[in-house]
Amino acid sequence: MIAELARIVGDDAVLPGSEARYLEDATAIRGLRGKADAVVLPGSPAETAQVVAFCYEHELAVIPRGGGTGYAGGAVPIDGGVVLSLERLTRVRQFDPLLWRIHVEAGVTTAQLRRLARESGLFFPPDPGAAEQSQIGGNIATNAGGPHAFKYGVTGNWVTGIEAVVPPGELIAVGGPIRKDQSGYDLKSLLIGSEGTLAVITAAWLRLHPAPERFLPLVGVYRDTGSGCAVLETVVGSGLVPSALEYLDRGALSASAGSFSLDVPAEAGFMVMTEADGSHEESAALREELLAVLEDGALLVYAPEATADVEALWRWRDGVSVAVSARRGGKVGEDIVVPLDRLAEAIEEIVSIGDRHGLEAVSWGHAGDGNLHANYLVDLTSPDDLARAEAAAAEGFALATRLGGSISGEHGLGWLKRGQLEKQWAPAALSLHRGIKDAFDPKGLLNPSKKT
Amino acid sequence: MIAELARIVGDDAVLPGSEARYLEDATAIRGLRGKADAVVLPGSPAETAQVVAFCYEHELAVIPRGGGTGYAGGAVPIDGGVVLSLERLTRVRQFDPLLWRIHVEAGVTTAQLRRLARESGLFFPPDPGAAEQSQIGGNIATNAGGPHAFKYGVTGNWVTGIEAVVPPGELIAVGGPIRKDQSGYDLKSLLIGSEGTLAVITAAWLRLHPAPERFLPLVGVYRDTGSGCAVLETVVGSGLVPSALEYLDRGALSASAGSFSLDVPAEAGFMVMTEADGSHEESAALREELLAVLEDGALLVYAPEATADVEALWRWRDGVSVAVSARRGGKVGEDIVVPLDRLAEAIEEIVSIGDRHGLEAVSWGHAGDGNLHANYLVDLTSPDDLARAEAAAAEGFALATRLGGSISGEHGLGWLKRGQLEKQWAPAALSLHRGIKDAFDPKGLLNPSKKT
Repeated sequence: MIAELARIVGDDAVLPGSEARYLEDATAIRGLRGKADAVVLPGSPAETAQVVAFCYEHELAVIPRGGGTGYAGGAVPIDGGVVLSLERLTRVRQFDPLLWRIHVEAGVTTAQLRRLARESGLFFPPDPGAAEQSQIGGNIATNAGGPHAFKYGVTGNWVTGIEAVVPPGELIAVGGPIRKDQSGYDLKSLLIGSEGTLAVITAAWLRLHPAPERFLPLVGVYRDTGSGCAVLETVVGSGLVPSALEYLDRGALSASAGSFSLDVPAEAGFMVMTEADGSHEESAALREELLAVLEDGALLVYAPEATADVEALWRWRDGVSVAVSARRGGKVGEDIVVPLDRLAEAIEEIVSIGDRHGLEAVSWGHAGDGNLHANYLVDLTSPDDLARAEAAAAEGFALATRLGGSISGEHGLGWLKRGQLEKQWAPAALSLHRGIKDAFDPKGLLNPSKKT
Repeated sequence: MIAELARIVGDDAVLPGSEARYLEDATAIRGLRGKADAVVLPGSPAETAQVVAFCYEHELAVIPRGGGTGYAGGAVPIDGGVVLSLERLTRVRQFDPLLWRIHVEAGVTTAQLRRLARESGLFFPPDPGAAEQSQIGGNIATNAGGPHAFKYGVTGNWVTGIEAVVPPGELIAVGGPIRKDQSGYDLKSLLIGSEGTLAVITAAWLRLHPAPERFLPLVGVYRDTGSGCAVLETVVGSGLVPSALEYLDRGALSASAGSFSLDVPAEAGFMVMTEADGSHEESAALREELLAVLEDGALLVYAPEATADVEALWRWRDGVSVAVSARRGGKVGEDIVVPLDRLAEAIEEIVSIGDRHGLEAVSWGHAGDGNLHANYLVDLTSPDDLARAEAAAAEGFALATRLGGSISGEHGLGWLKRGQLEKQWAPAALSLHRGIKDAFDPKGLLNPSKKT
């Protein structure tokens, strides 16, 4: 097998299945590690198609892999097979800044894409974490979100065309450098977020947007979840359109307050973070309006304008996940979604779920999108902690479903949420989900046991 | 059969298949008229599911129908079966203006939805034509667009959840009053634009947006396509984000100039129409910038600010299609898409295609989205004219594909574009298209022979 794969991609591009860094993703901290028969790094979409064709013919599982930054174990080879890493597909095939569009291969990193856009006065809005590691192919395969999804939508909103390898090993393209397409069924949207279980994405046409002249974040700190969520609802209810609308609950704030630029009052129980973007005038006007809403009942308001302070604030926000992990050494988390008017209830219930399982539970996330990162703090060396955290996480999924939400807003189902979809969807919808998988991948070889 | 259907929906809600207005859509002008065995008007989603179940069990075709304003024959019952009109599903189930969301049944008209939103300071951006007739279910089923799609996207961008009946007659719901969902495969997007061939949409959760304070349209008239398209590219290349970016070519302008508020110079060969929206300050600033671009080389610039003039201008724009039809009594048209940098070439080539077939060809449409309404003017009583127009339209599809675009931007495939998709998509993609149809509708009874 190794020899056959090497014939397609070259000797240097086939690694042994024991190559550790290809067997895990961001869930390694929870102990998830897979095993593989080989790791293949094709050098082109054509080679990718040949690898898939070879695997499909020989009934070998194919586990597509981007930057390996996922939180759901989607890129982990659970039960052997060939890890297919897209990291060498790094060509920028075409970039038309005057037309707001770019054509990139799957292995281009999110950070590189954003830098390229920015250098031409444009903006690629999706900003999931780990921008230097995560790749656009993986972002599309998981429909990655991030704080700016509130105003600008998730990754999928910016994809106008996809090139992908579908079983049994053929390269197809749907969409392209066009902004509308109402021809065949929306295969493009179906592949977006399909987590490598329907196709291997090799390249994409993306829309870009003129860059806002500046981003002005604002932070408000409140006594509790109720008063903080009331501020969130007032922002939205006032018809203001911030570019981000984030929150941290008491526990998340407490875990990360030490590295915040200002002293957070001891009685702080909730933080709202929002942002005004646009032209100088527009962002200034919106900032004033947001400030007026945030100040109402706040213990502390912080609204930096200097670029360095703005960047420092976002870096701090990016570090929340790490700060929370550091509290007990580890965390088990999920990213449920609820309707915005159920956010306060969900935030409080997550803490109660933790209590019931004897674990501190904290949450933060994309408030405007009702998207909670609900995490249970654990000692990773304690099997008991981990078992209780898994049970708590399952209650979190049930909570999301009960409140009319979803078990995932941006991390996807991957391996960790297997079996949860049947609690959210009716049998007829689940049966269509499986029918689609069968139509694309009749042998069930593409990222098996994921997204089920 | 009639008796059985009446048992489900009541006697008054089953009409004979000869009921003329249910046998055609906006393609009636091209002579397309179908035939049906019965017309059924269910009074609820549950009744809709029972009707589909009955039809599915008895192998009767089901032709879902919204407002019947489509341009592709998608709602025309080509070969008998049961026309299932959603017109009685008109409930607004929930409206949460402070949370920017609404839950409506499929039969609510686009105009009613937009009015409701507007009354609460919100905005439902998609604005396909025929707003008083077209229904939100049909808009979703065809993923309808309109001028404001340039800034705000097509109908699908505003749908967060769908309730639909899938074969063999079950009601499912995917998504909901949530802004993110990364759980199962994106069934929601798959149903959007599926033209009634996969499911019957009965209700939808929609996102709304705070209403811009005002809309300030601007019009520039140029000597020819080249200079007009250069202005379009300058607007985009300058990083301006107008809410609409439309064009009329020489023929479309000439056909509709008579009802324009100002005298259009005889040498006019192209019109650009754009619009600044937002707050008072923001729209004023953008209007100034757009004006500066439009004035360069213009024969005429018109930029009304008074509400009555603004509304009159948009009414005039809405009337272009009728004005073009009036020129020779009829038109045969399609709505191809090309990359923006190929727009000028496509516009000129459409005229040449008309020339080669002995027909005047004109186009207008959503320039910023590269979406042309390419029309061949015909005498509808002349079979020869119609045959030549069909041949010309086929060349238009080939042109779109050759330029890297799509055979439809917003009208869909319906019945009129049957067989065209195979010129745009590779066999492997087509095979997935068919596999999806089989997974949803194994008996092939939902809107048969459409979207193929």
